[in-house]
Amino acid sequence: MATDRSVRIGLIGAGAIGEDHARRLSTVIRGADVVAVHDVDPSRAKTVATRFRDARVIPDGNSLIGDPDVDAVVVASAAPTHEAYVLAAIAARKPVFCEKPLATTAAGCLRIVEAEKAHGRRFVRVGFMRRFDPAYLGLKAELRSGAIGHPLLAHLAHRNPAVPSTLRTTDAIADSLVHEMDLVRWLFDTEIREVRAVAGRRNAKAGPDLHDPLLVLVRMATDVVVDVELSLNIGYGYHIRAEIVGENGTVALASEQPIVRRISGEERRPVAQHWKTRFAAAYDAELSEWVRDVSQGRVSGPSAWDGYAATLATDAAAESLRSDTAVAAFPGDVPTLYREP
Amino acid sequence: MATDRSVRIGLIGAGAIGEDHARRLSTVIRGADVVAVHDVDPSRAKTVATRFRDARVIPDGNSLIGDPDVDAVVVASAAPTHEAYVLAAIAARKPVFCEKPLATTAAGCLRIVEAEKAHGRRFVRVGFMRRFDPAYLGLKAELRSGAIGHPLLAHLAHRNPAVPSTLRTTDAIADSLVHEMDLVRWLFDTEIREVRAVAGRRNAKAGPDLHDPLLVLVRMATDVVVDVELSLNIGYGYHIRAEIVGENGTVALASEQPIVRRISGEERRPVAQHWKTRFAAAYDAELSEWVRDVSQGRVSGPSAWDGYAATLATDAAAESLRSDTAVAAFPGDVPTLYREP
Amino acid sequence: MATDRSVRIGLIGAGAIGEDHARRLSTVIRGADVVAVHDVDPSRAKTVATRFRDARVIPDGNSLIGDPDVDAVVVASAAPTHEAYVLAAIAARKPVFCEKPLATTAAGCLRIVEAEKAHGRRFVRVGFMRRFDPAYLGLKAELRSGAIGHPLLAHLAHRNPAVPSTLRTTDAIADSLVHEMDLVRWLFDTEIREVRAVAGRRNAKAGPDLHDPLLVLVRMATDVVVDVELSLNIGYGYHIRAEIVGENGTVALASEQPIVRRISGEERRPVAQHWKTRFAAAYDAELSEWVRDVSQGRVSGPSAWDGYAATLATDAAAESLRSDTAVAAFPGDVPTLYREP
Amino acid sequence: MATDRSVRIGLIGAGAIGEDHARRLSTVIRGADVVAVHDVDPSRAKTVATRFRDARVIPDGNSLIGDPDVDAVVVASAAPTHEAYVLAAIAARKPVFCEKPLATTAAGCLRIVEAEKAHGRRFVRVGFMRRFDPAYLGLKAELRSGAIGHPLLAHLAHRNPAVPSTLRTTDAIADSLVHEMDLVRWLFDTEIREVRAVAGRRNAKAGPDLHDPLLVLVRMATDVVVDVELSLNIGYGYHIRAEIVGENGTVALASEQPIVRRISGEERRPVAQHWKTRFAAAYDAELSEWVRDVSQGRVSGPSAWDGYAATLATDAAAESLRSDTAVAAFPGDVPTLYREP
Repeated sequence: MATDRSVRIGLIGAGAIGEDHARRLSTVIRGADVVAVHDVDPSRAKTVATRFRDARVIPDGNSLIGDPDVDAVVVASAAPTHEAYVLAAIAARKPVFCEKPLATTAAGCLRIVEAEKAHGRRFVRVGFMRRFDPAYLGLKAELRSGAIGHPLLAHLAHRNPAVPSTLRTTDAIADSLVHEMDLVRWLFDTEIREVRAVAGRRNAKAGPDLHDPLLVLVRMATDVVVDVELSLNIGYGYHIRAEIVGENGTVALASEQPIVRRISGEERRPVAQHWKTRFAAAYDAELSEWVRDVSQGRVSGPSAWDGYAATLATDAAAESLRSDTAVAAFPGDVPTLYREP
Repeated sequence: MATDRSVRIGLIGAGAIGEDHARRLSTVIRGADVVAVHDVDPSRAKTVATRFRDARVIPDGNSLIGDPDVDAVVVASAAPTHEAYVLAAIAARKPVFCEKPLATTAAGCLRIVEAEKAHGRRFVRVGFMRRFDPAYLGLKAELRSGAIGHPLLAHLAHRNPAVPSTLRTTDAIADSLVHEMDLVRWLFDTEIREVRAVAGRRNAKAGPDLHDPLLVLVRMATDVVVDVELSLNIGYGYHIRAEIVGENGTVALASEQPIVRRISGEERRPVAQHWKTRFAAAYDAELSEWVRDVSQGRVSGPSAWDGYAATLATDAAAESLRSDTAVAAFPGDVPTLYREP
Repeated sequence: MATDRSVRIGLIGAGAIGEDHARRLSTVIRGADVVAVHDVDPSRAKTVATRFRDARVIPDGNSLIGDPDVDAVVVASAAPTHEAYVLAAIAARKPVFCEKPLATTAAGCLRIVEAEKAHGRRFVRVGFMRRFDPAYLGLKAELRSGAIGHPLLAHLAHRNPAVPSTLRTTDAIADSLVHEMDLVRWLFDTEIREVRAVAGRRNAKAGPDLHDPLLVLVRMATDVVVDVELSLNIGYGYHIRAEIVGENGTVALASEQPIVRRISGEERRPVAQHWKTRFAAAYDAELSEWVRDVSQGRVSGPSAWDGYAATLATDAAAESLRSDTAVAAFPGDVPTLYREP
Repeated sequence: MATDRSVRIGLIGAGAIGEDHARRLSTVIRGADVVAVHDVDPSRAKTVATRFRDARVIPDGNSLIGDPDVDAVVVASAAPTHEAYVLAAIAARKPVFCEKPLATTAAGCLRIVEAEKAHGRRFVRVGFMRRFDPAYLGLKAELRSGAIGHPLLAHLAHRNPAVPSTLRTTDAIADSLVHEMDLVRWLFDTEIREVRAVAGRRNAKAGPDLHDPLLVLVRMATDVVVDVELSLNIGYGYHIRAEIVGENGTVALASEQPIVRRISGEERRPVAQHWKTRFAAAYDAELSEWVRDVSQGRVSGPSAWDGYAATLATDAAAESLRSDTAVAAFPGDVPTLYREP
C-alpha cells in the first residue's frame, strides 16, 4: 500500500512565504516532500530544512535546480532573482512554481515566455493564489452563471495594515498591485488594454518614497472599467474587497470572518491581519493542485503568459504615475501554447 | 393655544417630487400649509391642490410667487424652469426652496448667486436632501470624530433600477450626479478641484443617448480623490453606496433595510426600490428645518453657492466625457455671504 | 388657511418618557399642542411646560383630566398611577394615551376593560410603540406574505445596557417583558396560552433583587413556541433581536444602524444605546396616529384588551419564576368591543 | 526521502459519510491510506475501495478490525452497529475513530467507557467535528479571552433543509441534537445538568413520526441555560446558528458564505445546503489530527466519555418529550482517564 512516490521538491528562498510553503508541502499537502532548500542566508535555509523534515541545504540555487533528486522547484526568493531561476528550471526541463511577480519587468517575463515557447511546452506555474480563494472562485462562478449579465465595472481594494517605511511606490505596485492585475484578467477572461494610476492625498504614515494610497483605473479589452484602491498603511487589517457591477446587479466579496462580537457599544467582526491568514486556504489549494499536476506530468494554472500580462500592467501603472497619462498595457493575442484547450 | 401661525407655502411644480413635498408639508411637517399650487398642467395642479387640503390653483408661476398670501415658495418644476422662478422669488424677497439642480448650467446658478449678493442676503435653499439622511450624517460625524484620520479616498455609487430610454447622458449627469458632487463638498468641507468622467462598457439596457454606467473621478481641493459609479439601469434597486478611506481605517454606509429573510437557499435583505423611499426621512428633515427657518426669518442649509459649485462639477463631468480629459471645476473662494459663521 | 384646530393635550407625568412625548407633541407632530402638564414634582412639570411652549402646570392629575381646555390625555406617570388616571379619563369620556403597562396587574387592566365596556366604546390607546417600528412592521408584513409559511417558533431578545441596582425582578418583568408579550400577540394575531420563566446563571452586575438574565418560554394559542431572552445589564447597548422560524425559512430583524467602521482590526457597527433612540421613529408614528385619531373622533391601535392580555402574561411569568412551573395566561376570547372590524 | 510510513486505515461503513472520509483520507490528508473497506452492502464497499485507490474489500467488519495490515479503524456504519465495532477495536487495541453517536444509548456508551478503563488507556475518538470548525473555535477563543465575561445564556439552532419522511423524533434527537449536546459541554467546559424538550407547532412538511421543530432547554452544571432549536425541514438550507450571551456582551456565529449578490430587489448571501459542505474544513481538520495522533501513538480529541455524556443528554431530551418534565442528565465526575492533563 501507499506505493505512490511523493514529489521531491527543491525550495529556493526560505523567507516568509518560502517557509510557509515548506510547512505546507511538508505537513499539510499530500504527495510532496521538501528534499532540498537554498537561501542566500544559509542559516535560514538550515532552519527551514530541519524544521519540518530532514531536507538538504544546497548552497547554490542552480545546483538545487540541477540536482537529480529534485523533481520540481519552488521559487520563493527575492523578486529580482525569479527570472534567472525560472529560466534555469526551464533549461533543466523541471516543473517550477514561481511566486509572483514572475519577473520584475515585463521584458523579463517575456524572456520566460520565449523560453517555454522554444521548448514547445509549459514548465512554469505562477503563484497567483487568489485564483484558488473560495471567495474569488465564488465571484467567478457568479459571473459565469450569467445572473448579473455582462460585467460592466468593478471596484477592487487591496489594503495592507502597514508596510516598511523604506518601501518605494514602484515596488509596491510590482508586488501588490500585480495580484489585482492578474485577478481582473482571470475574472473577466480577457486582457487589460490600458492602465491609469492616480495619486491623491498621501497617508501621513507612508514612507518618503511611497505614494500611498493609489487609485488605479484599468480598462479591459472588453471595455469593462475597473478601479483599484491600493492602500498600504490602512492600519485596521489586511483587507481585500471586490464588487463587480453587471447589467442586472452586482456580486461582491462579503465579510470573510466567521464570528461577530457585540461588545462596548458595537457589533464587531474581526478582520484578517495578514495575507498568510486571509489566503491560507488558497495557498493550500494552489500548491495541492500543483503537486498533483507534477506527479501526473501536467502543467496547468497561472502561466508565464499570465505572469507577463500582469507585469505589463503593473509596469504601465508605474509609467502612468510618472507621466500622468493612461498607458497601454495590451499584451497581444494569447500564444497557442497558453490557450486553454 | 396653538397660536403660532403656519407658514403659507406656494408650490410650483406638482409632479412626482412636487406632489410628495405637498403631502409632506400638508400632513407630516408641523407649522406649514400649502396654500397655492402651480403646474404647467393645470389638472395636475388641481389634483394636488385638493388632495391634501384646499389650496388655490394659480395658473401662472410668477403670480404665485408674488401672491401676498404666499409666505415662501417651493420650486419643484422641470429643471430648465428653476433659474427664472428662483430669481423671481429673490426679486420678491421671499424664501425659496428649490429642488436640485438649482439651474441647468453653472452660469445660471451664478446668476442666482449674484442676485443674492446684490440683496446682501440669502433667500435660497437647494434641495440637497442627502445632507439630512441619518446614514450620511453618521458618515460625517465619523469623519469629524477623527477616528479614521484624514480622509484620503472615497468610493461612491449611485444606482437607479431603471431610467427612461430617452434619457440623455448630460441630463443624467445634471440630475443624478449632482447629488454626489454636493455630497463630497459637504462631507469633506472643501471644494472640488477637477473632474474626469470615464465611460466603459455600456449596459445593453441603456437607451441610445445614454452612456450607462459612468465612472467619475473627482479630485478635491485637499487632494482627496473620489470615484463615483453612476449606474442608471442596474435593475436590482435604488442603491446608494459610500466608503471613505482614511489614514487609519474606513467608514461606510451599511445596509439600510431592517429585516433579513432566510429562504430559498439564501439570506436576503430587501433593497430600497425608489429614492422617495430611501430618502423619505431625509426629505422630512430637510423640509422641517426649512419651515422652521422660514417661520423664524432665517435662511440656512444648502445654499445657492452649493448649487453653483455642484453644477460646475457636473458641467465639468459632461465636458470631460466629451473631451476625454480631466476638467477643472474649482468654483473659487466661498463668498462672504455663504460662509458659515 | 390653516384652519384645523390642533388637539389640546394634557400630559400627566413629565419624567423621561413624558418629557420626550411633550417634545414630540410640541415640535415634531402636526396637529397637537401640549396645553397642560402635571407631575408629582411640580418643578419638573414647570420645566417641561415651559420648554416647548407655554403650557399650564396643573397641580392635580384629575383636575387636568377634567379641564375643559384639555381634549385628550397622555399618561406617562409612574406605573402604579396608570390605572386610576386611565379610569378617570374614561369617566371624563376623553381619549387617553397610556404608557405601558396599562396597569401593574392584570386585575387592574381588567377594571379598565370593564369601564370601557360599560361605556360601550373605547377611549384608551396603550403605548406599545413597537407595533409602529418599521423593522417589526417589516417582520409582520413578511409573515403576512406567506413566504416562510406558518410561523412555528420565534426567538426574541430584549437587552438593556444597564438598570439601577435597586430594580426588582417582578418590576423588570412588568416594565420590559410586557413589550414582548404584546409583540408576540400582535405578530402572530393570536393570544398567549402559557408562560414559563427560567432563571439561569446570574449576571454579577445585577442588583440583589434582580434575576438577570431570564429566559421566558411562551406558548401561543396556535402552539407557536417563543423564547424570550431578557437581559438587563448586557453592557454593550440597547438591543432588540427577533427571528421567526416558519415552515420554509425565517425572517429576522437585521442590524439597524446605518454605518460601518473598519478600524483597529475590526469591522464595527454601532449599536443603539437607548430605547429612546432605537424607537424614536416608532414613538413619532404612534403618537402621530393617535393625534390624527383624536382629531377625527376615532380610537384605534393597542387597546385596553391588549394591555390586559400582555399584563396577564407578565403576571404569569412572575408567577412561573416563583413556582417553577408553566403558568396559564390565556385571557379568554376577545370581547366584541375589541375585535377588529 | 518520504520515509514516514502512512497509517493504514480500515473503513467500516461506506455510505455518505464513510465515502467522504475515504476520499478525505485517500486524497486530501497527508500520512494515511485506506487499505480495507467493509460495508453491509459489498458492492458499495467495492465502489469506495476502488474509487480512490486499490483497497481490499473485507466482507466482515470484525475481520477488518483484526487484520494485521490495518493500523487503525474508522467506524462510519449505521449507528446501531457502532458500539460492537468500537468494543472490538478496543479489544484489538487499535485506535478507532467512531462517527457520532458513539452508541445509540447512554448505557452502550458507558460500556465503551468501561472497556477503555479496563485497559487503562484511550483508544476511541468520537467524530464530533464541530470542535474543529473555525467558527466554533472562534467562539471558544472569544469565551476564553474573557471579553464578554462569564457566559450566562446561549441560543443555538440546528437547521436541516429536509429529512426523510420516515425519520422518527428519537432518531432525530440521537443523530442531530447530539452535536449540540457535545458542543455546549466543549464550549463551556462543564457538564450538562438537566434537559427539557418542548414541542410546539409542527411543520406540515414533517413526517408522521417526527416532531419538528423542537426547542430544547439545557441547563449546564454552572447554571448557564441554553436553548436549542432543532428544525429538520426548514427548507432554505443547512444552517447552524449560535449566540452566547455573557455578562458584558455576546459572541455569535456570523454568515459563513463569502460572497453577496445584489439582484432582483435584494442583497443575497447563499446559505450552505449540506453539512458536508458546511463542515468540510472541520472534517479535514478532525481526521488530520487523528491521523497525526495515530502515527505518533497518541489518542486525543473527543473521547468515549464525551460520547457518553452527549448521548446521556439526548436520551434525557427524548425522555423529557415523553414525560413533559425536565430530565436530569449529569454524567458524574469526569473519570481520571478522560481528564485533560
